[in-house]
Amino acid sequence: MTPVHAEAEKNIKNVTVSRYAFEIPGFRTAVAASGMRYKGRTDLALIVSDNPSGCTASGVFTRNCFCAAPVEVCREHLAGGRAKAVIANAGIANACTGEDGKMRSVQTARLVAKELGCEEDSVLVASTGVIGMQLPTGPIAEKVPELVASLTRSGWEDAARAIMTTDLVPKMASARVVVDGKTITVGGIAKGSGMIAPDMATLLVFVCTDASVSSEVLDHWTRAGAEDSFNSITVDGDTSTNDTLIVLAGGAAGNPTLTDIDGPSSVAFGEALGAVLRDLAIQVVMDGEGATKLIEIDVTGAKNRGDARTVALTVSNSPLVKTAFFGQDANWGRIVAAAGRAGVDLQPENVTLYFEDLCVFRGGTPVLGQEVEERASEIFKQKDIRVRLDLGMGNGAFTAYTCDFSFDYVKINASYRS
Amino acid sequence: MTPVHAEAEKNIKNVTVSRYAFEIPGFRTAVAASGMRYKGRTDLALIVSDNPSGCTASGVFTRNCFCAAPVEVCREHLAGGRAKAVIANAGIANACTGEDGKMRSVQTARLVAKELGCEEDSVLVASTGVIGMQLPTGPIAEKVPELVASLTRSGWEDAARAIMTTDLVPKMASARVVVDGKTITVGGIAKGSGMIAPDMATLLVFVCTDASVSSEVLDHWTRAGAEDSFNSITVDGDTSTNDTLIVLAGGAAGNPTLTDIDGPSSVAFGEALGAVLRDLAIQVVMDGEGATKLIEIDVTGAKNRGDARTVALTVSNSPLVKTAFFGQDANWGRIVAAAGRAGVDLQPENVTLYFEDLCVFRGGTPVLGQEVEERASEIFKQKDIRVRLDLGMGNGAFTAYTCDFSFDYVKINASYRS
Repeated sequence: MTPVHAEAEKNIKNVTVSRYAFEIPGFRTAVAASGMRYKGRTDLALIVSDNPSGCTASGVFTRNCFCAAPVEVCREHLAGGRAKAVIANAGIANACTGEDGKMRSVQTARLVAKELGCEEDSVLVASTGVIGMQLPTGPIAEKVPELVASLTRSGWEDAARAIMTTDLVPKMASARVVVDGKTITVGGIAKGSGMIAPDMATLLVFVCTDASVSSEVLDHWTRAGAEDSFNSITVDGDTSTNDTLIVLAGGAAGNPTLTDIDGPSSVAFGEALGAVLRDLAIQVVMDGEGATKLIEIDVTGAKNRGDARTVALTVSNSPLVKTAFFGQDANWGRIVAAAGRAGVDLQPENVTLYFEDLCVFRGGTPVLGQEVEERASEIFKQKDIRVRLDLGMGNGAFTAYTCDFSFDYVKINASYRS
Repeated sequence: MTPVHAEAEKNIKNVTVSRYAFEIPGFRTAVAASGMRYKGRTDLALIVSDNPSGCTASGVFTRNCFCAAPVEVCREHLAGGRAKAVIANAGIANACTGEDGKMRSVQTARLVAKELGCEEDSVLVASTGVIGMQLPTGPIAEKVPELVASLTRSGWEDAARAIMTTDLVPKMASARVVVDGKTITVGGIAKGSGMIAPDMATLLVFVCTDASVSSEVLDHWTRAGAEDSFNSITVDGDTSTNDTLIVLAGGAAGNPTLTDIDGPSSVAFGEALGAVLRDLAIQVVMDGEGATKLIEIDVTGAKNRGDARTVALTVSNSPLVKTAFFGQDANWGRIVAAAGRAGVDLQPENVTLYFEDLCVFRGGTPVLGQEVEERASEIFKQKDIRVRLDLGMGNGAFTAYTCDFSFDYVKINASYRS
């Protein structure tokens, strides 16, 4: 299947995000094929900062209680807020592997550190693939010298491909903004086939920037950006043992280090990082398992942002809503009913529902008529559908992205033997 | 598709529940075909207590903010804890219909009350079917005299059929227990095609007993029974605008009225009611849209019952878990990962997972080996699968029932036009 969107540039909150090839001054990448599980394709990606002492680093990880060994290791290695490199492998997730598994992730970091001549704890590790299987470090050890020897500035797309599992397309995005007179670049790659799932569908995101940013500011915008991107998308509500988002800031742009979170330069940087993360997240939903449509669920008029988020994600995760989109059935009833069970205070007579700009529900009852039904039907044939649900209670708003639920979703996930 | 289970008797918590025909002394039922939406089938069911002044009545309703007109009317009419009759229709749900809709539900109650010679507020109403459409009271008015004239003691199966929408089989269950030297009967009918959904799949449950029970005791056991039955099942996590459970206690058995909730007679009655509700709930899951398997998710060892319930329902609602069951893929990873994201405190190394009596996960890692895999594979071919997840943290336990997620689920809910 081809991705739902083919557009290469997108305007997100006033930032132009590109899906074309990019380079980030101060960072290089390399890929290799270890053969540990896949044949005839790359499965290792290395990202390295040119700074001898590494760069500012921040991370956001799965909240699943069953977190994988590489996630534990990353959390420990990020304690100081700095990193020199990231090594990622696809095929084996090194999750549910106990103490032995953790040792193998540490060993992977050690192999890279030795080759780069840096400290072991300045190397971050990430894995994706089947869970419950031990990570073979032999094939990694064999490839580390080759990886370090082949580092290049123009390898981001290759890196995006090396970390794919069930993904159908590589995902990359970049943006440029001027900060204190210097043009800075934010660019990154992601993998994840929409579902945020335990095996073969982990979400991995690596973003680098040449901006000079303090630890505190980088942590702030990484967390805020994750909230508005990867924490706002859903394919099936499931989360993975390995979900990892890492942001590295090297400083090659030469801007004065961003230290004031609320300052305009910090905000400009935050918008660029946020836009890149948002676009990568949308690419993940678009590549959702079995997805045929990208659906934006805009909730407005909630009492607060938390309520808006709860309603948006409840609607986004409803199998009934998602199958209706797949069936191109403009079923307003399933959307309002999902909102109604979200567990937030809600008055039916205040609720208004729109498909694009077409009002289909208002004052507790549907807006009826053949013209409305025909227009709604047309809208549901689109590949890209915006649903707006106004709760009429306040100013809380939240936008979630989801995809439809198709036969292919069941087929892919049932490993159906036909 | 035929139902997953065909057994006619089941032992639930020491109570024998039968799915054969039954009668409840003191209650009669009748059915009619109004033609309001379906052709060539019955769509109205009336249940009437023989007591001139009605009987003790209790109800549990949808918690969805968008509750339908008949639910609002029932809540008002049940304020006094008594009722004479219940009238239910299938085909039109009278939901999202505003003030006019509510008037039509009140009018339905009035038509029945007039014919029975009782107060309007002693008639309860229930509807299921499409939402957003006004209930035509003309066809009901025309049939009410016929309904009242044809009341019979042996009409429960006909009543179960009259309230079906997408259900494939009528659902009925009854049990008998001795209370203070008198044999009492609890029997009821249900409709609902597994999913608890806004259109065509509302859950309606009507249970009657000849026991003499105080309002307080009946409310207690109705709520407790609903919690362990209809609030413990899930097909897709969606709830309906019209979900209604009504329990009527007429007193024809002649037992001394049950007034002490904790007394042994009350407990014996509560167990019988609970068993009937649990069996009706299991029948609903078995008839789940597209379901090919009934899955019991037993969570034990949680810190408390609430945590156990959260984990059991998170696992039960996970599309990844449900598609794995459909694919007969003994995927322990999806089950532990769903438990891990449930939002309750959980230590992976304490968790143990069993498929039937086969341990597949212990101490944070899978139990590997060809024999385990082969046995797990065999278990996943069963129609009926018990999964037990012990969290190893305390004594909290909860059992949920769910079904698998199949191509047919998507087909039915996408209204797929092929």
